Order: sequence, then structure tokens, then C-alpha cells
Amino acid sequence: MPAEMPVRLRIFSLNCWGIRYLSKHCAQRYTMIGDLLSKEQHDVALLQEVWSEKDFHVLKKKLGGTHPYSHYFKSGFFGSGLAVFSKHRIHDAFLYKYTLNGYPYMAHHGDWFGGKAVGKVLLNISGLAIHVFVTHLHAEYCREPDSYLPHRVVQAWELQNFIRHTSAGADVVILGGDLNMHPTDLGIRLLQSYTGLKDCYNETASFDGFEQGFTHITDNPFTHKQELIPFGGGIRIDYVFFKGSKSVDVSCESLSTTKGPVPGQPFPYSDHEALSTELELHPSEDGKGYSNQEKDCTTDKLSELVNIVTEARTEVKVGLHCAERMRYTAARTGIMGLALLLLELAIAAVPCFALGTEQPFPKASFYLLGALCFAILFCTTLLYIFYGMEVKALQGAEDQMRLALGSLQERLKAFPKGKYEGRSQTELDSRDPSTLEPDD
Amino acid sequence: MPAEMPVRLRIFSLNCWGIRYLSKHCAQRYTMIGDLLSKEQHDVALLQEVWSEKDFHVLKKKLGGTHPYSHYFKSGFFGSGLAVFSKHRIHDAFLYKYTLNGYPYMAHHGDWFGGKAVGKVLLNISGLAIHVFVTHLHAEYCREPDSYLPHRVVQAWELQNFIRHTSAGADVVILGGDLNMHPTDLGIRLLQSYTGLKDCYNETASFDGFEQGFTHITDNPFTHKQELIPFGGGIRIDYVFFKGSKSVDVSCESLSTTKGPVPGQPFPYSDHEALSTELELHPSEDGKGYSNQEKDCTTDKLSELVNIVTEARTEVKVGLHCAERMRYTAARTGIMGLALLLLELAIAAVPCFALGTEQPFPKASFYLLGALCFAILFCTTLLYIFYGMEVKALQGAEDQMRLALGSLQERLKAFPKGKYEGRSQTELDSRDPSTLEPDD
Repeated sequence: MPAEMPVRLRIFSLNCWGIRYLSKHCAQRYTMIGDLLSKEQHDVALLQEVWSEKDFHVLKKKLGGTHPYSHYFKSGFFGSGLAVFSKHRIHDAFLYKYTLNGYPYMAHHGDWFGGKAVGKVLLNISGLAIHVFVTHLHAEYCREPDSYLPHRVVQAWELQNFIRHTSAGADVVILGGDLNMHPTDLGIRLLQSYTGLKDCYNETASFDGFEQGFTHITDNPFTHKQELIPFGGGIRIDYVFFKGSKSVDVSCESLSTTKGPVPGQPFPYSDHEALSTELELHPSEDGKGYSNQEKDCTTDKLSELVNIVTEARTEVKVGLHCAERMRYTAARTGIMGLALLLLELAIAAVPCFALGTEQPFPKASFYLLGALCFAILFCTTLLYIFYGMEVKALQGAEDQMRLALGSLQERLKAFPKGKYEGRSQTELDSRDPSTLEPDD
Repeated sequence: MPAEMPVRLRIFSLNCWGIRYLSKHCAQRYTMIGDLLSKEQHDVALLQEVWSEKDFHVLKKKLGGTHPYSHYFKSGFFGSGLAVFSKHRIHDAFLYKYTLNGYPYMAHHGDWFGGKAVGKVLLNISGLAIHVFVTHLHAEYCREPDSYLPHRVVQAWELQNFIRHTSAGADVVILGGDLNMHPTDLGIRLLQSYTGLKDCYNETASFDGFEQGFTHITDNPFTHKQELIPFGGGIRIDYVFFKGSKSVDVSCESLSTTKGPVPGQPFPYSDHEALSTELELHPSEDGKGYSNQEKDCTTDKLSELVNIVTEARTEVKVGLHCAERMRYTAARTGIMGLALLLLELAIAAVPCFALGTEQPFPKASFYLLGALCFAILFCTTLLYIFYGMEVKALQGAEDQMRLALGSLQERLKAFPKGKYEGRSQTELDSRDPSTLEPDD
């Protein structure tokens, strides 16, 4: 048990937009970010889009004095872009790479190559087990229609699953990152309802930042202004979430965001705004604090969760329909390529008998067409495999959702309205099944 | 807390070798497996290599009466092959797909297409949270040299990571499956040392099966006898592991394996032998049982763990060296393809000036060579991306191992010999950091 309470934790989160040679003023901005972190000395800094490990090492060298512990999560082709700098020893790290992450042929979007993931580090601060998660979800390139929505919903599903399953032993859970979702989007609701995580922006005692907590704003010279105008000049897509436990109560004392241009600097830190928050950790008397925090978890909340999971399942089904159609198209095109190849071979065979040597055999066209057929066959085979894997992943997520719905509905049926009063979601979930009626 | 103790749990595990149209007598063997499960009525049956969902659904239909709850883990192109049948409601399911899993171009090995993974289901039996894991690791096609060893070691590393991180809230942890590793292999030592999981074969009060617990034997008509002769007629690569908790003590009452041919049947259930085990769950007085189970965790054990992780790290480094070499070869071949293409274009340009129209332009050869160059460029690009991802995954695992070693060595340094006496590995790991000295 902790020696000293309350404990104050200062958390920083920023999408660094660190694509070497492509992002504007990348090196200078990393210098500015390093300066900021050195000066502010947050307990933990959660960075996203640190696409180059070289930049991570530059930061690591610079922050050696203030943040001696760090971890870069490697994933995909470039690396996940996720980095953690900590004043406290990192005891353990674990990475979960999302199953779905866009398409490799959409190379200009690049998400697939990044290997988006959720990283977890374990800290021990004043004897408390602090589980810190950092993530970056698939970007939203177009809101309506958003062809990546099913992928992002599955990522949100996997994110909440990962957090729920891996944080049973935590005193405090913290999640920071660029979730690429607006506060009322399905994925955010899914994440919060299922895990009980609280949004710093909604919970903070004091806020200093852009209106509505926007983290992607028109005032930032690196953003595409046209995209943000429909949303009132900005959107909130970067978050810090937190959750206490039976033994620890957590409150958000303050939250601040940068506001575009940095005073005294020629440009901002990134195309996203940075979040800084201060959390206060209090002891709580044997679960009292915990139930205080989450005592509003009633059957209504459980019904809401059922609705949200149902909505997510519908979205996944839409994605499944698309993926199945794409797989079918790949198969059909492949078969056409094969038919063309066979036809060509037939044509090549026929002149030997019909035309003899009267006409020269069109060798060049023959080889070109043959090569084209092989290319079609090869590419459609690759696409068929890729879409097949996408279908399996979407089906897998849908199966898990169906299973979860069955379990949630069973609980709703078993407990009459009001019976959940005073019990937290975490108490109700399967890691403490003593609150459940036996099924067998 | 559980109403009735002791609780008896009967667990079944079998690699079904269920490749439709390729595995011998596949349909008949599924019928036999279904009959066996119907008759034996284990609490939980963990199946591997159920490659076709159709076969899963056939089993599901057949076992509807005895095992009303089931889950099939979908992953990769074919599905992970992992299936769970349970007499008790499955409250939640979660899948972790291993980062490394062989190579897609080794299609005849097929592991990559299977998307090997570890699946977890949550059961609530008599009020106890039972976390059941099922997995299937990459096959060992040749023991010396085993080109897949680094992949399997990373899988074992991820498996122990997944179990450690997700089972903090468990009363009982059970892991079953085909681990494709001999009992003294690095991956098994890593798994057991880090998680504290106990091997049923070593712990059972009564054993009935083939000598040394072999699960892949020469007596089985489906196995390649030549491969097994060097190992004394069989190997043990299928396991059931278990672990209790602070509140529950687990003992293995019996373990049995099938012994090749099934009496009264024309062939065995599979090319692997099936495992059946009976676990008994006792209450334990506030951690007493737990420390009884694991009180032998001393500094010696911790040193051993450091050695094992170091050994694993070395193996990963060997794999990393190979992957980097392959990536380099892909890049070099790609550059050669590009050079050939440029050379060809140069040759195509030259005759216009030098030879004029004296000689006909060799169109066919030109196009053929061009197509070949494009094919080389395309394939090497794909390979370069694939090997790049393999490198990242191996580096990521190595980073995690280095981090873990740092933390383990810090503990070893901080505690003089004997200070760990009576503390379990789980108590020492980061989910209960109250046993650690603060670092800051």
C-alpha cells in the first residue's frame, strides 16, 4: 500500500505529426517538444506519430535527465509511432496490435504501414500499480462517408477489451492518445461505457484551452481549415482518460491544451494540440471511493451498454458486407484474368493450324497480354487473401460482440431493476463474477 | 466467493488435425471426437487445428446438449483453428494474434495463413473466475536447424505476456493447447517461469497414458515415424497448465492421454494424442494456499528467470540478424531489378540512333524482360515490406525483454538473498508493485 497519499500525477499527450521529410518543420518541432517536456517535467508523456525511431532517440537523449525511462512501441513497417517517456521506472511493456488497420494499397493514407496499436506500460509510483495505455486509432480522412469506420469501431472494441482484460490488477488506469473520434462517436461511447474510464475534459476541476477542448483546430497553420469549418472551427479527438480502483480514488485537478501557435515560436508543436493534465490520487476506504466514483452504474447503464454494443455490432456488420463484396470482386477479377490467360493460350494454339506461317505470330502482344494476365492473377490472389483476413477479423469481432451481448442481457434479465445500485461496472464484469448468478 | 468447494473441473485438449480434404479421414475423426466429448462430458474442451468453421459448427450442433456454450476464434485467413466447448456460460472472449507466424510464401507450411493466436474465455464456475486460455504455436518442421525458432520464442514470449497481463483478476488460470515445444524447450521454460503456471503432467497425482506423456507418437498411423525415432518414439508437445490464486488452491488429480489407435475404431482421433485432466479447486485461507503453491520462488528462481529471458533475447537476436539479412537481400534484388529495367530502356533507346531500321526491334524480348523486371520489383517490394515488419516485431520483442530484464535485475539487486522467501512470482511481478522498492 502506498506510503504517501495524495499522489499527484501529471500526464502529457501529443500527436507529434512526425513524418520525417514530409511533415513541415519536423526536426524543429521535435526540438520544441523536447524543450517543453524538459521544462514541464510531467510524470508521464505519451506521444503518438513518432514515426521515426531516430526522432525517438533524439528525444530520449534530450530527456535523459528529466525522463530517464522511456519505451518505443515497435509495430508494423514504420513502428506504431507510440512512445512513452516517464520519470518513473517502466517495469513492463506490452503491445496489442489492432487486427484491422486500413488497407496496404492505400499507401498515401499510411495507417496500415504504421501498424496502429495500443501500448501498455506498468509503473510503480509510491507503491501504486499505475497502468498507462497509449494508443492511436485509424485516421478519419472523410467523415461522411467514412470508409474506415468499421475498422475504427473494431479498434475501439479491441482497445476496450485490451484495457478491461489487462487492468484487473491496476490501482489506477490512464489512457492517452489520438483516438481520431469525436466525443460522442460510437467508439468513445463503447470505450467509456465498457471500461468505466472517465474523460479528463468532462471531469476536470479547471480547464484552460481551446473552446470545447478542441485538439485539432483551424487556428493551427498545419491543419486543413476547410475540413474543420463544418465542426465550428475544431474537433476534439485527443484524450486523456482515467479510472481509479477499489483502493484508489482519482480526480482530475486540471486539464490544459495548447492553443495553436506557440508564443515566441514560429509555429505550433504539431498539427494537433497537446494535452496536459494533473490527476490526484487519494486513498479510498475499502471500495468506498470506487463505488462513489461509479455508483451510478445501474441497470439503465447496463441497458445503455447493450445498446452501444448492438450499434457497434451493426457497424461491424456493414463493414463485413463491404469486405465480403471486395473479396468477391477480387475472386471474380482473378477468374477473369485466368479466363483471359486460357483464351490467349487457345489463340496462340489456333494459328499453328489455321493460319500456318502465312501471318507472323504476334509475339510481343502475346507476351504482353500473358504478363498482364499473370499480374492480374497474382494481384487478385493477394487481394483475395487480404480481404479474406479482413472478413475473418470482422467476423471475429462480431462474434465477440454477440457473446458479450448474450452475457450482458443475461445479467439484465437475472437482476431486477435497481439490484445493480451501488455496484460498479468493473464489479459487474467477469473479473469479479461473484456478483453474478451462477449459470450452471 | 464460491458457494461450494472443492470444485472439480475436467479439461480436455486435442489438436484435431482438421484440414478439410487434406487430413486423412477428417470427417470420420470429427465424428469420433464429437462422440468422445459427448460421452466424457468434460467441463471444458479446448480444440486446436479446427481449420474449417463448418467442422466447428458440426461439432457445435452435436455437442449442443452436453456443451451448450462454445466459441470459435477467428483469425488469419483460415481462422486460428482454436475452438472452445464449455458446459458453463462463456462470459467473455478475447483473442491475441501472435505478431510473428512464419512466412506467407511458405504456403505448404500454412502457419501464416492460420493466423496463430492465443484465445481467452472467461467462465464463472461456482462463483469462481476461471480464465481459460487455448493456443497453438508455430509448428516445428525441422528441429535442427529450426528456422522458425525465433518466431516460436516470440510467440512464447507474447503468450506469457498475454497470460500475465490478462489474468490478474483470475481465481484459476488454465492453459491448454499444442505448444509445439518439448518440455525442456526455451519457450516452455519461459512460459512457466514467468507465469508460474504448472504442468499437469508434472503435478498429477495419477497418470494414464503413453510413456513420458508423449502426445505425438510413432504408434499413431498418421504421424511420420522417422521424425520421432530420434526422440525415443514420441514427443510431448501438447499441454494443460494451471495456476491457482490467493483465494484458490488448485491440484491436478489425474491426467490421461489417448494412446494412438482407439479400441474399436479404425484409426485414432488425430495425429496428436488427446489430453484429459481433472483439476480440484480448494479454498485457501487468505493467500496461504497461494504461497504454499509458489513459496519456492526465491532469488534463485528470479536469477533463473533472468537467465531464461536472456536466452530468449539471444534467440530473438539471432532471428533479427536473419530477418535483417533477408530484408537486405530483398532490397538488393529489387535494386538489381530496377537496374535491369533501366538498362533495358537504355538498350531500347540506343538502336533508334545506332542501328536505325536495319535490324527489327526485338519487341517480344523487350516486353518479356520488362515484365520480368516489373515482377521482380513488385515481389521484392512486398518482401521488403514483409521483412521490415518482421524486423520491427523482433526488435519490439527484444526491447520488451530488455525492459523486463532491467526490472528483474533491479529487483535482484534491491533484495538481498532470501528476502523473496515465501513470496510468489505473481506477488513479485508488477501487478502487485507494493512488494517492490519505489524507484523514484
